[in-house]
Amino acid sequence: MSDFFEVVLNQRACRDFSDQPVPDDDIEQILTAATHAPSAENTQPWVFVVVRDDAVRNALSDLTRRLWSAGGRDYAAAHNTEHLFNEVDALVDRGLGGAPVFVVVCGDTTAGAHPTSLGSSIFPAVQNLLLAANALGYGSALTTLTTYGGDELRTLLGLPEHLTAMAIVPLGRPARPLGPPRRRPVASSTHRDRYGSMWEP
Amino acid sequence: MSDFFEVVLNQRACRDFSDQPVPDDDIEQILTAATHAPSAENTQPWVFVVVRDDAVRNALSDLTRRLWSAGGRDYAAAHNTEHLFNEVDALVDRGLGGAPVFVVVCGDTTAGAHPTSLGSSIFPAVQNLLLAANALGYGSALTTLTTYGGDELRTLLGLPEHLTAMAIVPLGRPARPLGPPRRRPVASSTHRDRYGSMWEP
Repeated sequence: MSDFFEVVLNQRACRDFSDQPVPDDDIEQILTAATHAPSAENTQPWVFVVVRDDAVRNALSDLTRRLWSAGGRDYAAAHNTEHLFNEVDALVDRGLGGAPVFVVVCGDTTAGAHPTSLGSSIFPAVQNLLLAANALGYGSALTTLTTYGGDELRTLLGLPEHLTAMAIVPLGRPARPLGPPRRRPVASSTHRDRYGSMWEP
Repeated sequence: MSDFFEVVLNQRACRDFSDQPVPDDDIEQILTAATHAPSAENTQPWVFVVVRDDAVRNALSDLTRRLWSAGGRDYAAAHNTEHLFNEVDALVDRGLGGAPVFVVVCGDTTAGAHPTSLGSSIFPAVQNLLLAANALGYGSALTTLTTYGGDELRTLLGLPEHLTAMAIVPLGRPARPLGPPRRRPVASSTHRDRYGSMWEP
């Protein structure tokens, strides 16, 4: 898939992966896209940990399962549709969907820009990562649950104090074709000049 | 520009705009791309205010100038390269670069997902917005300074309490061709399996 709008309009979460390998060259291309995102004052505060190692992936999966059981699961069961809940529950159970690669995206809190700006400097790069994966035929998902793993996560990945894990993206070939993303129409969330004057296309 | 990687690798901040108009159809296409970003639990907590009105744009520009003078400017002068400082200083002075459209991107704090996840659910959409603008030949920039405008910003845009402005994106044709983005190589910020084992491409 190479057409820009085709890639963007068909990007969606993949929650079940095949074990087909992801070559380094593809990861390099995906991360090159990620690093071309904007960041506050062009500080580029992203740090990526590309995890293939079975022991590290298993430990991350186990941590995620425990965080899910400890609260995320009950919250999701109460708030999400049954379909979405079942999909996420299975993703966690399989170990982030059984993806052969997990990309942990961290933010450098000492990169220099205003600390509250870290999200605005990291999630654009994460989005480029997801889109580039889709362009190359890979599935991916933006997950954040594992980032609540505190010191255990820090120790597992050897993260120094100045880095904060902000997203974990499982990456691999989808186990089966993905349907289209489901979104509300633009007009339902868009206003003209001031809030309250709805956008009419 | 329609090739996915061409769009992504050439997206960069535009800080000086011509006054050529931006038709509604193009804004609709750009926001459609934005709304296809992922969000926590697919809550889609984004709200867009598309500002063309001169009085609202002037008031937002004036607010931004005051926030810049009140602290942002000194901080940037001390921390940024002279080139970047001068570019941003001129952007603020001209009124967000003199763009004919400002897109204010807000997050709905009551959308249901964990409140700390709002950044992870808004900035991917902002990145899609910037990329789609680039694909259609428009310049744009991810700015956040104006979002520190508190009650004045809320009143100006008529924002209800449950919405938080998270980014303001000036949008329009670039006044002159933009150079390529400047980024560090992937290998300098990428690790293998655990932090400290550097990625070798």
